[in-house]
Formats: sequence, C-alpha cells, structure tokens
Amino acid sequence: MSNERTEISLLGEFGLIEHLTRNIELQNASSLVGVGDDAAVIDHFGKQTVVTTDMLVEGVHFDLMYTPLKHLGYKSVVVNLSDIYAMNAIPTQIVIALAISNRFSLEAIDEFYEGIYAACEKYGVDLVGGDTTSSQKGFIISVTAIGEVAPDKYVKRSTAQKGDLLCVSGDLGAAYVGLLFLEREKKIFMESPGVQPDLEGESYVIGRMLKPEARKDIIELLANNNITPTSMIDVSDGLSSEILHLCKESGLGCLLYEEKIPIAKEMRDAAFKFEIDPTACALSGGEDYELLFTIPQSEYDKLVLNEDISIIGYMTEPEHGSHIITKGGSKYPITAQGWNHMKQ
Amino acid sequence: MSNERTEISLLGEFGLIEHLTRNIELQNASSLVGVGDDAAVIDHFGKQTVVTTDMLVEGVHFDLMYTPLKHLGYKSVVVNLSDIYAMNAIPTQIVIALAISNRFSLEAIDEFYEGIYAACEKYGVDLVGGDTTSSQKGFIISVTAIGEVAPDKYVKRSTAQKGDLLCVSGDLGAAYVGLLFLEREKKIFMESPGVQPDLEGESYVIGRMLKPEARKDIIELLANNNITPTSMIDVSDGLSSEILHLCKESGLGCLLYEEKIPIAKEMRDAAFKFEIDPTACALSGGEDYELLFTIPQSEYDKLVLNEDISIIGYMTEPEHGSHIITKGGSKYPITAQGWNHMKQ
Repeated sequence: MSNERTEISLLGEFGLIEHLTRNIELQNASSLVGVGDDAAVIDHFGKQTVVTTDMLVEGVHFDLMYTPLKHLGYKSVVVNLSDIYAMNAIPTQIVIALAISNRFSLEAIDEFYEGIYAACEKYGVDLVGGDTTSSQKGFIISVTAIGEVAPDKYVKRSTAQKGDLLCVSGDLGAAYVGLLFLEREKKIFMESPGVQPDLEGESYVIGRMLKPEARKDIIELLANNNITPTSMIDVSDGLSSEILHLCKESGLGCLLYEEKIPIAKEMRDAAFKFEIDPTACALSGGEDYELLFTIPQSEYDKLVLNEDISIIGYMTEPEHGSHIITKGGSKYPITAQGWNHMKQ
Repeated sequence: MSNERTEISLLGEFGLIEHLTRNIELQNASSLVGVGDDAAVIDHFGKQTVVTTDMLVEGVHFDLMYTPLKHLGYKSVVVNLSDIYAMNAIPTQIVIALAISNRFSLEAIDEFYEGIYAACEKYGVDLVGGDTTSSQKGFIISVTAIGEVAPDKYVKRSTAQKGDLLCVSGDLGAAYVGLLFLEREKKIFMESPGVQPDLEGESYVIGRMLKPEARKDIIELLANNNITPTSMIDVSDGLSSEILHLCKESGLGCLLYEEKIPIAKEMRDAAFKFEIDPTACALSGGEDYELLFTIPQSEYDKLVLNEDISIIGYMTEPEHGSHIITKGGSKYPITAQGWNHMKQ
C-alpha cells in the first residue's frame, strides 16, 4: 500500500466510480455499454442482454428497526429491476449474494426471501443463482439483475438531443418524507421505548419508502405508444442528481419548471409537517425509483394527457447550463444534493 | 418476524441454500439452469449466457493483515471466472459491487482495482458495471461474472453417468496449507510485532492461497481434444465436498483412490511441517479452484498422459455410496468437511 492517503469522501460516490473506471478498455466486442449507465448492455449473437448490480448494506441503506425483512427483500429486487427498465429493457433473471451475521435466524431469512420471491413473481423474473455467506456484522445484500432488449431499443443516458422534452413518471419526494417519519418515530422510540409509533395517515409516503415499485408499466406504455425515449435514467438519488447525469452524459443543458414537478398531495402535506419544502424533497430526496427520460418534441401529443407521466422541462444547448425556473419565476442552477452514501 | 428462532448454523451453507430455494419455479423459458450449479444458464434467443455471483467478506473470506489488496482484487475476479469455466463456458464480462468502510483510502481501493483489471486482462473479460457504497465496517466484495457457451455445450453437476471417470486438474490442498502459514505468521506477529514473517520457501503454497488462477487452459484443452465432460464443478470447498456434490446431483456413488489424488511436492513438504496429512488437506482444504469433472471411459486415452489432469476414480451405482480407497487399501466413506463459512 502506498504512503499517500486520499479520503474517499473527497471524491463522493460518482467521483470514485469515475476515478476507478477511467482507464477501462473493453476487450470483448460483445460489451456494447459498460460502466456509466443504469446497466451494462451485452451483445449476444445480435441480441442484447442488460446487466446491473446494486449492494444494500445494513446501517447505510436500510435500518432494520423500521424495515420489515419482507419489504427489504422486495425492495432489494425492485431497485435492480428499476435499473433494467431504465435501459428500456425487460428484466428476466436475478442472482443474489447475501452476507448474514449470526444475529439473524432462519425465520428472519425466510421472511426476507418471501419478499424476494414476491418481487420475482410480480415482475416475472427468475432467481437463478446466488451465494450465501456469513458476515461479521450486519446484513449485506447484493443483487444482480439481467434483462433483455431488442437490438437498437436500449436507451442510454448519453443520447438526449437538444430540444427534447424532459419527462418523469409518477410523483417524487414521497420516499424521502416517508423516511423522515420513520426516523422520527425511531428517535422517539429510542428515547421512550413505551411510546407507540404515530404513523397514522402517512401510509402513502411510508409505503413509497419501504416498498417501492419499478415502473414496468411505463416501459410497456412507451412501447405500446411506439415511443423510444432518446435517453433515460431511474430516479434513485433525487431528481436534481439524475437530471444532471442526463445533461452531463448527453453534453447538454436543460430548463426544468418547478410547477411541473409531480408531487403527491400526501407528500406535500407530510413535508409541511416537517416544515420543509416539498420541491426540495422532490429535487434532493432519494429512492423514488421513477423513470426520468427525454423524448423528441414530436412525441408530445402522445404523452401530454397521460396522468402517469409529467413533462417537466426540456433539453438545451450546453452553454445554457442546467437551471430550474421556480414558481415565482426565478432561475437557479440545478445542483446535485442527492443521497450520496459515500459522504455520510 | 415470527417468534421461532432456528440458528442458521444448524443448516450450514448448502442446507440454507436448499431451504431458501426449495420452492423456486422458474417463470422465464430462458432460465435453463437455475440455483444449484456453479452458474446459471440463460437462453438468449437460442444461445446460452452463463451467470454466477460470489461475495467475499473481510474477516470471513480474507484477512487484510496478510492479503495484499491487489491480490484480493485479482482473486475476487478469478473465483467467479472459475465458476463460469466449471460450466464449460467462456467468461466475457463482470460487474462488481463494493462496500468500503472509511478506513480505506483511495490509494487502497486503487490497489484493489489494479488486481481486478489484471485479472480482466489475463482472462479477456470486461468490467462493465458496478456499485460502490460505504460499509459501517470492513470491506465487502460482490462479483457477478457472465459468460457464454454454445448451445448444448454447457456442463452441469447432475449429468455424470455410471462408470464415468472422475478427473481433476492441477494439484490440491496447497491453498489450505498456504493459509496455515499465513495464519501462523499473523499469530506470531500479533504476539511479537517486531518479528519478521518467515515464509521462506513457501511461495508455492502461499501463492496458491493469495493469487489463485482459474483453469481456462483446461476448458481449452478439453475443447481442443473434442471432449465434453459429462459433469463438472470447480474445487472451492475441498475435493470431498465437490465429489459429494457431483454424486448427489447426478444420483450416483463413486470410488476415489487416495494414491491418485494430485498433490504438489511443495504442499506435501509444507503439510509435514504442520504435522498434518497431505491427503486430508486435499480432501478438506478449500480454495484450490481446480476443475473436477467426469468423462466417459471411452475418452480415457485422450487424457491419461496429460500432466495437468489426474484420473482419480470413477462413478458407481448410488447404492455403493461414495468411498475412498486409501493407499493402505482400506475403504472409507467420503465425508464433506470442506470450508463451510456458515459454521464458523
């Protein structure tokens, strides 16, 4: 080991990935898309296989004090399927590697797997392999998902075009507010163990946190409407962060309209209880697992009336940078303040 | 969580996997081979994709006191490629998920990746994706490898035939003895930090532990000789354990000859220093990453003179069980005492 020491936190997660992968030269002609998108794309004899992997670490990505193991299993699968859908592909298989400390009983692991299988069934994917080992501390989950896509139908982050409309599915920020409730109740419980959690009326935002879904339906809707997005990414780190990814990878700027950002009433009400701005939750909260994508303006008519999709802005020349126009008409640069686990 | 509590250690790793996967029903026609072999096989439009995943946990699978990070990166890739070769397939891509505590500097992670890239280059595979996150404690590595194989050329564990010859590549047990040296020197160092490690002359066995190779050459040799094994598995948990897997999955027994088990002179000498039986190391030591396979007797002539492959026994009717004939002519049942991380 060399004597220099650079703290990883200086780079952040994305900086670290860029640093580590800066010299990759792909050797196999079948490696069509490598590091740097939601998933890799592999050519198999003229057809495309899509692969993605995600690791969830207890204490970093989830807290078992308020996360039912079944929900955790379900979510572990869903977050990976979301990456496959974000390539406009259909997930078909998953493999799972687990490290488990002896704190966990077989019954606990069974509950976790119930969630895994529930997600497999719902999304039509097969669990085809895995590795189970022990950990010294905590519960660590690594899921790799595999999918397929017809040739030339996969959608990268880097191919948005100037003038394209910026679209997002569902609503944003609710998972983050759900997390705030769960953390608040945990704190109260730690201080006064007799007190029952008060989560009355917050089932929507808490459900968005504990049991997210991947937007298979949006991929089907786009296909049924004969729309291939020009670029796409899933919203796991907050809208700002994902928009900046699309802009950077595509070499463009963008204009985002605050009033167009989809926010559920339940999320808005909940955010006010914490005295925080709902728009800030949508921009910087994580784990929504919605799809952010761009389409040519010519496709506007096909989507404008769809309640599951919001058109929130458009792509511009890179010189204009990436900005948000607030409801009050002010213009600010978009900054990434998404969940950055490396900075914790 | 239910009130019952069954300790996972009661089942062991293989028991746990069996338990968790007992109800799997594959939904996709493309899922040709699922859980229970070295790797999964996925049909992609008539061609086969092979996928496997392995997780390495600090303190369980490796000890950074004596494992250089570059070697660890190399080995993390190799152990997965070994599973792909064990399906008679060629690895083409890998994805890596890492969890890293803030104890590690960027320079340390760079060293680790040097090993990753060295293995990728040597075996002609591409790193196409990954996930990097923080851990609360230690270093956790999850690698998923993807490969390809021509239709009907993949080799499972379950298809050995009665009378088939049992073959193994290379030599066995050296990695385990290498580990014994490293653990001994660690203990001495912990007790007397000034003492320099005494590993003189043990580079072969230590190299087998710290920097194993996957037997790409054996897969090529078999192909060049037009041999498709009837069953195959890689030797990661000790010869006994792997033989019992082939027997169980194929519904057969076997007869193994102690005198035929390939053992390197360096391993034999080293085992004697620890006053342990070299055969026991070969049978129960782990991490050799050789290939164990069966071939029809008609292929005997093609392999008998090959120095890289030993014919160590043959498959029998299941009623006969699985036995070893010792050098002294005694016959004992083969028992699995491989490395079982779950029992630690």
